[in-house]
Amino acid sequence: MQALVYNGPGQKNLEDRPKPSIQMPSDAIIRITKTTICGTDLHILKGDVPTCQPGTILGHEGVGVVDAVGPGVVSFKPGDRVLISCITACGRCASCRKGMYSHCATGGWILGHSIDGTQAEFVRVPYADTSLYPIPEGADEEALVMLSDILPTGFECGVLNGKVEPGSSVAIVGSGPIGLAALLTAQFYAPSEIIMIDLDDNRLAVGKRFGATATVNSADGNATQQVMKLTGGRGVDTAIEAVGIPATFKLCQDIVAAGGIVANVGVHGVKVDLHLEKLWSHNVTITTGLVDTFSIPMLLKTVQSKRIDAKQLITHHFKLGEIMQAYDTFSKAADTKALKVIIEA
Amino acid sequence: MQALVYNGPGQKNLEDRPKPSIQMPSDAIIRITKTTICGTDLHILKGDVPTCQPGTILGHEGVGVVDAVGPGVVSFKPGDRVLISCITACGRCASCRKGMYSHCATGGWILGHSIDGTQAEFVRVPYADTSLYPIPEGADEEALVMLSDILPTGFECGVLNGKVEPGSSVAIVGSGPIGLAALLTAQFYAPSEIIMIDLDDNRLAVGKRFGATATVNSADGNATQQVMKLTGGRGVDTAIEAVGIPATFKLCQDIVAAGGIVANVGVHGVKVDLHLEKLWSHNVTITTGLVDTFSIPMLLKTVQSKRIDAKQLITHHFKLGEIMQAYDTFSKAADTKALKVIIEA
Amino acid sequence: MQALVYNGPGQKNLEDRPKPSIQMPSDAIIRITKTTICGTDLHILKGDVPTCQPGTILGHEGVGVVDAVGPGVVSFKPGDRVLISCITACGRCASCRKGMYSHCATGGWILGHSIDGTQAEFVRVPYADTSLYPIPEGADEEALVMLSDILPTGFECGVLNGKVEPGSSVAIVGSGPIGLAALLTAQFYAPSEIIMIDLDDNRLAVGKRFGATATVNSADGNATQQVMKLTGGRGVDTAIEAVGIPATFKLCQDIVAAGGIVANVGVHGVKVDLHLEKLWSHNVTITTGLVDTFSIPMLLKTVQSKRIDAKQLITHHFKLGEIMQAYDTFSKAADTKALKVIIEA
Amino acid sequence: MQALVYNGPGQKNLEDRPKPSIQMPSDAIIRITKTTICGTDLHILKGDVPTCQPGTILGHEGVGVVDAVGPGVVSFKPGDRVLISCITACGRCASCRKGMYSHCATGGWILGHSIDGTQAEFVRVPYADTSLYPIPEGADEEALVMLSDILPTGFECGVLNGKVEPGSSVAIVGSGPIGLAALLTAQFYAPSEIIMIDLDDNRLAVGKRFGATATVNSADGNATQQVMKLTGGRGVDTAIEAVGIPATFKLCQDIVAAGGIVANVGVHGVKVDLHLEKLWSHNVTITTGLVDTFSIPMLLKTVQSKRIDAKQLITHHFKLGEIMQAYDTFSKAADTKALKVIIEA
Repeated sequence: MQALVYNGPGQKNLEDRPKPSIQMPSDAIIRITKTTICGTDLHILKGDVPTCQPGTILGHEGVGVVDAVGPGVVSFKPGDRVLISCITACGRCASCRKGMYSHCATGGWILGHSIDGTQAEFVRVPYADTSLYPIPEGADEEALVMLSDILPTGFECGVLNGKVEPGSSVAIVGSGPIGLAALLTAQFYAPSEIIMIDLDDNRLAVGKRFGATATVNSADGNATQQVMKLTGGRGVDTAIEAVGIPATFKLCQDIVAAGGIVANVGVHGVKVDLHLEKLWSHNVTITTGLVDTFSIPMLLKTVQSKRIDAKQLITHHFKLGEIMQAYDTFSKAADTKALKVIIEA
Repeated sequence: MQALVYNGPGQKNLEDRPKPSIQMPSDAIIRITKTTICGTDLHILKGDVPTCQPGTILGHEGVGVVDAVGPGVVSFKPGDRVLISCITACGRCASCRKGMYSHCATGGWILGHSIDGTQAEFVRVPYADTSLYPIPEGADEEALVMLSDILPTGFECGVLNGKVEPGSSVAIVGSGPIGLAALLTAQFYAPSEIIMIDLDDNRLAVGKRFGATATVNSADGNATQQVMKLTGGRGVDTAIEAVGIPATFKLCQDIVAAGGIVANVGVHGVKVDLHLEKLWSHNVTITTGLVDTFSIPMLLKTVQSKRIDAKQLITHHFKLGEIMQAYDTFSKAADTKALKVIIEA
Repeated sequence: MQALVYNGPGQKNLEDRPKPSIQMPSDAIIRITKTTICGTDLHILKGDVPTCQPGTILGHEGVGVVDAVGPGVVSFKPGDRVLISCITACGRCASCRKGMYSHCATGGWILGHSIDGTQAEFVRVPYADTSLYPIPEGADEEALVMLSDILPTGFECGVLNGKVEPGSSVAIVGSGPIGLAALLTAQFYAPSEIIMIDLDDNRLAVGKRFGATATVNSADGNATQQVMKLTGGRGVDTAIEAVGIPATFKLCQDIVAAGGIVANVGVHGVKVDLHLEKLWSHNVTITTGLVDTFSIPMLLKTVQSKRIDAKQLITHHFKLGEIMQAYDTFSKAADTKALKVIIEA
Repeated sequence: MQALVYNGPGQKNLEDRPKPSIQMPSDAIIRITKTTICGTDLHILKGDVPTCQPGTILGHEGVGVVDAVGPGVVSFKPGDRVLISCITACGRCASCRKGMYSHCATGGWILGHSIDGTQAEFVRVPYADTSLYPIPEGADEEALVMLSDILPTGFECGVLNGKVEPGSSVAIVGSGPIGLAALLTAQFYAPSEIIMIDLDDNRLAVGKRFGATATVNSADGNATQQVMKLTGGRGVDTAIEAVGIPATFKLCQDIVAAGGIVANVGVHGVKVDLHLEKLWSHNVTITTGLVDTFSIPMLLKTVQSKRIDAKQLITHHFKLGEIMQAYDTFSKAADTKALKVIIEA
């Protein structure tokens, strides 16, 4: 079968690989129909994720059709259409019992990381019963690809950790795909202000179109002052960090109100300064987290009932055979204005 | 001054009464600009509320202008435009410290009940600092009359107690003003289904216009079956009781899903049957409550940011001199299609 | 093997039955070492539980040793010592994902109810990975039998649903095994008052010994007045119903403070009166629930760290061959002063 | 009257000052009977708190008798015995409405900071109705001095923010008065492990006596390894930082388990490193906060019901005339083994 293989930093190829087979009783083999590329895949290709070995098929998002199941699988059978969670959950360990699937003792983020992933014709999904979700009759499968990772991540790590609530004020630092996913799902809670902050005016314009009440271009270094002006000098109740560098984390500390929350979503490569000499008395909360994807069933309902239009995030379409070009488009987002790209297998 | 006075069951008059004056250091005198009539006022007039003495000026909702303040008032001064909470809160007792203002040791629902109310040219408001809210510059005061009681009641007792959340299913039994207030504020949380249930097709049509995803006319006795059909046999996550009679409370028990909540908002005059022989094992929660109005500041923000259009609830306008006619219109709602009426003083 | 079989209302026998075998990939066969009798077993024998068919082996509590596992079981192997939850959980359905294992689509309370139970030499446990718990090295297994049902029930349905908290006041109506389990676990939260209410002075004396701060014998009909006196006229923050009849549920309504919670634990056979004509405005919450046993791992830690002495609940010991006599002792608790009896298999 | 006056960095004197008088309608004048010294007073004397002007009477803790009240005070009258909160709350502003009294718009921590404090014969307390608490008949007033600041701080900022719960594991970094206050109040929630960490073996011995399940002397640099060993390699669910320097905050980051909480209580003078390159994916929460003292009424109940022995924290007694000596004893805690000192006025 065709598969996009990571061959070490800076190296990837569309290769021919054997079709995966059942290895454990709880496994399922899924024939991929649609997948996508994540910012994390670019991190792997830069060499930032040493736990990903050369030779691994990339990808942790997608929808498909069940091809085969192991003897321990009870919820799915061949032919079922399924959504694949980016997080593999055994459903039995102490972390899974708490719903913290990201820290599953034998699962977590393994697809396209420590085992072969979804950018291929077929993928093996361990613990299928608790890592796949049935696709309702008549659902738009393209929209559902956004539920494998990006929407749950924006929602769980940004909106839920950030305790967005009716009438509250929210700032989202970073208007890329993940920041926009937070923006879309923040609106579930009717905050009165959602301020998008970015360096790229195009992305801010998208933010405005997706429901931001204000936008701030932080290029001039006055973002803090602008947010303070927009919030009557109080700062925001929730600051969502959706970039992953020290400067954006600092901005979140500067703009969070007393009693507010900084919800970190960004993937950080280096330590940051935490200004406890100021914040110790400000009653603030800082949260971090890898997505658990416990919200997939809920998000499915909101997509089905049209409370959210997940397809807005999709800007480009490719065939699996064109995936090298898809990577090229996705990695040059400033030029191509790409948000999420769909790869049809 | 002119005032609408309760003179015993079935008896009310527009009378001339002396203007109130400061009695306690924490009092304020408010010149009423707009007030309204509540279903509770009709209950008093039927003689259902024996704690309301004949001779009391009715009304517990309204906006106005501060006319005078006692020496203990620090937050308001004459000329300030204010919203009056239906709940008077001392801000100091154990209940107030918990935000349960409805059970304030020396306050609670006293306006138009145990002391003179707002259906008059002026009203004395005790504990002004913690019972009045400043009206923001440029706000639509008519809309804000809906924040004195009806919107906080629907929101706090129905939506918050009922833990409405993204993707959840909600049924609201009773599509009168209070049920519609719950409907409007339930949408802060993006539930995937909101089913309005009533006997009156006109009110159901209003419910549909206000955002219900389905409506059920319960006249034929098949409401339970219809709700079960709409929810795939599961029942609803939240059932909001907005009528106050045994039959509607029974319906809520019949349609709530395992793990769900019945949030009672209706004012009940008699006991009801609770079917614990079935519900003991269904992991359900039942809540009751008088509104605390702690949500007024939040609701103000959602009105200001246009997340909610509170004026939709207003169907008629009268002058204070026409208040007898306003009562007539409001009490014949099935014919007049009245929801809330504004009385301008 | 020997097993205690329900043969219809009023009929039970210690019989010889075939040893169970693996039927599904997720099954385990457990050799029982210790089991016990629950009040629910007596309900079945009275004919109150028509869903339990004659011919069923009773019992839903116990500890034992894994004898065999199906091919889908990953967490246990023959020889492992395990604690059996009274609730069987598939770990995959919507209810299980929420931790509401009691409403598992294909599990829930099935042991000794719809399938053969634990009062036998061996038992088949479906969904073993998510329905059994490993016993830590050196643990006192007799104490752990209390974790199959009674302690999680008192804790989850009484203490957690009742939101017992530091400094709060609690009344527990019913000082039988389940009320005492609530009493023991309520002390995890340092309430300032725990009032035990019962008709039996012996059980109240046990309550006092287990940590109650006051006891009330309700035989004289003045329990409400006594509780009001003990709480300065305010009532209790949490009233736990641990009996299951209309009179005790009424008492809970009478003694709960405004803003308080009535947590129902009792199994009710008939409907009760709910006095909404009084409670509609009292901001009270009523909860019901079958135990989910999600708290077993936590309770294991508190037993291991000696925060709780679970063995206090055990009053008698029998061999499996003496189980008919054990039932006799347990069912005449007023005379025998039995709380929980241990049956060694 | 006699008063301990801050006269600039390193300078303090017991001076004669005029008795304070009512300035605002909500003021009360309290005759101090017992007060104490806080670590924060030492910070002021080092010059670390520039917002405290020379000439200010120090002290923000104490009990006393109401001497006079302003016309706006409704809850207290001369002769009432009262506990003084270290936090002055207007009870009306947006922060107070949320219970975040520490950020009261016109109050907060002002006693002994921006206005004269309690280390004197008399003190003026603004917003008396919401900043004083009545002392119950027969209470031990010496114990209650611990409720002005230290116990609420340990409880609110450490235990509540840290979400200590039954069966959980807790590490408290710093076994000084504030860490010990967290230790005492953590036991309200029956955690299975409480590990005290400090450099001083005497303070660790006190921790052990106060209920710690284990102690770690961090002098040898192996504290992380020791905590990991004590927790089976998992780390702690809650790490409470009760020192206020970068090294101790780093230790908390090192020992917190995935999904756990670092609750900062320490007063920090410089920024710290936050290792987001590791923690971004660990689902951790970090909280900061000045005490709000909303828990004083609850703590009073636990002291009255003997769930906690607050007097254990008191090691020394002085008269107000000996306060210079009391400061000396308190500031040399390593030698004097002082925890809290009582000053009788």
